[in-house]
Amino acid sequence: MTTTQSPHEGFVSLVGAGPGDPELLTLRALRCLQVADLVLYDALVSLEVVALASRAQRFFVGKRAHSKAMAQETINHLMIRAARRGKHVVRLKSGDPFVFGRGGEEALALHAAGVPFEVVPGVTSGVAAPGLAGIPVTHRGLSSGFLVVTGHVEGAYGPILESVTPNSLTVVVMMGIESRAGLMSFLIGRGWRRNTPTAIVFGAASADAFSWTGTLAELAAAPVQAAGDAPGTIVIGEVVSLARVLGQESSLPASKAAGDTNLSIGRQ
Amino acid sequence: MTTTQSPHEGFVSLVGAGPGDPELLTLRALRCLQVADLVLYDALVSLEVVALASRAQRFFVGKRAHSKAMAQETINHLMIRAARRGKHVVRLKSGDPFVFGRGGEEALALHAAGVPFEVVPGVTSGVAAPGLAGIPVTHRGLSSGFLVVTGHVEGAYGPILESVTPNSLTVVVMMGIESRAGLMSFLIGRGWRRNTPTAIVFGAASADAFSWTGTLAELAAAPVQAAGDAPGTIVIGEVVSLARVLGQESSLPASKAAGDTNLSIGRQ
Repeated sequence: MTTTQSPHEGFVSLVGAGPGDPELLTLRALRCLQVADLVLYDALVSLEVVALASRAQRFFVGKRAHSKAMAQETINHLMIRAARRGKHVVRLKSGDPFVFGRGGEEALALHAAGVPFEVVPGVTSGVAAPGLAGIPVTHRGLSSGFLVVTGHVEGAYGPILESVTPNSLTVVVMMGIESRAGLMSFLIGRGWRRNTPTAIVFGAASADAFSWTGTLAELAAAPVQAAGDAPGTIVIGEVVSLARVLGQESSLPASKAAGDTNLSIGRQ
Repeated sequence: MTTTQSPHEGFVSLVGAGPGDPELLTLRALRCLQVADLVLYDALVSLEVVALASRAQRFFVGKRAHSKAMAQETINHLMIRAARRGKHVVRLKSGDPFVFGRGGEEALALHAAGVPFEVVPGVTSGVAAPGLAGIPVTHRGLSSGFLVVTGHVEGAYGPILESVTPNSLTVVVMMGIESRAGLMSFLIGRGWRRNTPTAIVFGAASADAFSWTGTLAELAAAPVQAAGDAPGTIVIGEVVSLARVLGQESSLPASKAAGDTNLSIGRQ
């Protein structure tokens, strides 16, 4: 993917770490970690993955609950300074670096500073979290497209979801657990069916994987406290109904059939 | 990801091969290929990736230009029969198995037949092809969400794109090269700006990577013949404007600045 660099020339790899399980790293991401001098990683990157960068200095630069994230300018500065000193820097992001990862902003900063860089795409949780829970984001007859939005503020998802015809496609909401009540009201208020199959997949590719399925009207009351700090991906649409069958056998635990609301913890 | 299987029990892995470059395989996908007895692969999977399954019987089951694809029922039957004979079968799909890959249908067939299976998510071309061309599908201030549709027939993308407010988000169209003229008319007819930045990324993660950037109004006339049989991903939205800067340094070749229409072939 990248060209060979001179050993004295610094370089930054913007790397997607995938949804959490080290087995879902790409070969290229693993190689980057193995040769890195410095790794700057975000909150959602699993420590198992970070540990693969055995020869690197490793710094956490993400946001922890109730504390401020490192300023983006500081992260940019750290990358640029290390690269100028000849280091191979890996900027390690959960999922794919260009899906809500501010990867574009970092790439622009590197470009402006004249620091060479590459992008290493990763497995995005927007597709993999549903998939591991037995929910195909597309499925013939149920959905021929999917929309991925961030749920952290209504200002981000509102203008997009407002513009979409209710129940016309699969909606995946990343970082939306805390705003799920608002999201539910927003969609139902715009005409989405209250009984639209809906799921939350927590820590998709981890040993603590955990999923809830129910209906859109039940989203606000979904028992998310059981997930602790695990990141959650919300999926809304008819494809969620397939989790009943496929969730039993794909890589996440089966949903127990118990009326409309199903909850499952741990692995098979 | 999967549990250990008894050596006598057959098993099917529905594996995403990523966008083409073997370096963008996941570690799990590589391991599946290395132990597989039988690999059934699609047209868009690169032969370099298929070759990694060195001990497996390998069958092409995809669609070639101007010839019919193997019937889905035949593919299902091959998987089920081999698994029942105790084989580890890898069903290898381009990108992610649940993004327009009929992976859901195959999973349902395996479930119905009582054949155990797992899903191994992959790097989807819907995100990686733009990313490798320097186009982040999301970018603060430009797009806070993205929509992925298939372009092979208007019946698939029409109902979805019809329902989206023009220029409200990034649209990624997979398998839409042949219908690009219709797609262009469809969007402009529904109010999308004619000068919306638009790109086609061909064979994103291959040595023949090739990208075109221009405007929505120029999409029909984009010089796709130069791409030969390489699969193309269309990206429509303001984020495409970043390719001017980022496409010079990420893993695809720079677009040559030549008015609104830029064309680039090969690698840096």
